[in-house]
Amino acid sequence: MSQAGLIDGTSLSRRIVEDTAKRAADLSDRTGTAPCLATVLVGEDPASVTYVRMKRNRCRKAGIESRQVELPAATTTEELVGTLRSLSNDPGVHGILLQHPMGGHIDERAAFEAIAPEKDVDGVTFASFATMSFGLPGFVSCTPGGIMRLLDAYDVDPSGKRAVVVGRSAILGKPAGMLLLARDATVTFCHSRTRDLSSVVREADIVVAAVGRPRLIRGEDIKPGAVVIDAGYNPGNVGDVDFDSAVERAGLITPVPGGVGPMTIATLLEQTVEAAARQLGV
Amino acid sequence: MSQAGLIDGTSLSRRIVEDTAKRAADLSDRTGTAPCLATVLVGEDPASVTYVRMKRNRCRKAGIESRQVELPAATTTEELVGTLRSLSNDPGVHGILLQHPMGGHIDERAAFEAIAPEKDVDGVTFASFATMSFGLPGFVSCTPGGIMRLLDAYDVDPSGKRAVVVGRSAILGKPAGMLLLARDATVTFCHSRTRDLSSVVREADIVVAAVGRPRLIRGEDIKPGAVVIDAGYNPGNVGDVDFDSAVERAGLITPVPGGVGPMTIATLLEQTVEAAARQLGV
Repeated sequence: MSQAGLIDGTSLSRRIVEDTAKRAADLSDRTGTAPCLATVLVGEDPASVTYVRMKRNRCRKAGIESRQVELPAATTTEELVGTLRSLSNDPGVHGILLQHPMGGHIDERAAFEAIAPEKDVDGVTFASFATMSFGLPGFVSCTPGGIMRLLDAYDVDPSGKRAVVVGRSAILGKPAGMLLLARDATVTFCHSRTRDLSSVVREADIVVAAVGRPRLIRGEDIKPGAVVIDAGYNPGNVGDVDFDSAVERAGLITPVPGGVGPMTIATLLEQTVEAAARQLGV
Repeated sequence: MSQAGLIDGTSLSRRIVEDTAKRAADLSDRTGTAPCLATVLVGEDPASVTYVRMKRNRCRKAGIESRQVELPAATTTEELVGTLRSLSNDPGVHGILLQHPMGGHIDERAAFEAIAPEKDVDGVTFASFATMSFGLPGFVSCTPGGIMRLLDAYDVDPSGKRAVVVGRSAILGKPAGMLLLARDATVTFCHSRTRDLSSVVREADIVVAAVGRPRLIRGEDIKPGAVVIDAGYNPGNVGDVDFDSAVERAGLITPVPGGVGPMTIATLLEQTVEAAARQLGV
């Protein structure tokens, strides 16, 4: 059996970031205002600190300003909501990223909903979920949006295909499935309660693994020729798909790393500049 | 083969309405305020006029006041949004029903989003869709909510079962599937672009037909013993399921009429009283 083609998220994300940087520069030239992403970090969780720093660095390289908002770990939901509301009303801020998960005492949903939909460049609000689900204009959750870009770049048209999404989180599995449904795939959502997962996955022309369990999906679960998108990222650079066996059956497959991973931040940057363009009216 | 058991929506809806009427009376006694549903009708489409009148009559019988808002067919989106915002801010109104579909010149989504989520007893806002999708507290779309009540009443636990929803409208197919997913079913969404619909439906332990095509689903499409929920309602009292052949294969099935149909308004009334109770703080 021939090996699957590799879906190269590193190259595609680089092209998106380059285009985004050009657009950011053009926007700054024309309006005198650079696109600005507010990054909101609660507490000092080392992983979160690292992620936010990385996103800020990537913004800077793309000509996007970032406004760093760092709140103490003891911040209440009410205080956080107040901060997010004032960023939502601040004309100098075009996009808002609330780093999550946060401490257990914060009502994350209340915090997300304090982000104005037109600045929700991370795609976490109810409104963004609904616009994704209904195929309406709006911002997408970054990883699912990146997955759709990968499919488009490799001419994988979801229409009429069977897509199986393994995982149903609010920012990954559910929106990924709804975006595929909006593009006319026949979509099945699987999760921890799914019986005989292997046989369900074997129905899929497009598999999206988004569950956070290392190598859960194995080669024998893949219909020959299927497109396999691995959005899992587990310790040791291991995805939710057992790459070595899946690559022997799939038609196209994303590696981990270098597949879905780099698309997330590219989508964040692209949406930030898009938000700025809309708010600046150009 | 034995015939399927019938799911009796008429009796269940009657019990729900009786309980709702008791709760409405109790609420009126305790607070001096009766629950109030505002019904908003744009234009004079005969079917819409009939539906609104029927809903108002059912409210009255259940001890729910209704406030009738009738707007001319030429009403603009902006005017309608203004009306809905003022009803959203009116403490005398506990629930809002915007009869739809409306005339083609109105932006229905803008109108729906002008309804405060805490008064969205018809479950049409983005926020209600998201809370249904994420299994969070909130109001449900009335027909999907009624379907879940039928399943519960007949001890059909969706957890781990394969559910196939045929249809993906914003107020029926999509929310029905998301409610089933929130209850741990493995959910597949089918629609007009689905290839080989029969074979997909045959995978289902629970079929929800919600597409508006008379007798689209036939007995041979039903897995023996499956639960068949027919949310279709086509001219001539015909559902989306071919009842005569499906009843020979299903384990449980809803008739049309008398299955899903009466659950919709029962859910609307129940949610109106629930909204009033929350807003009146009792």
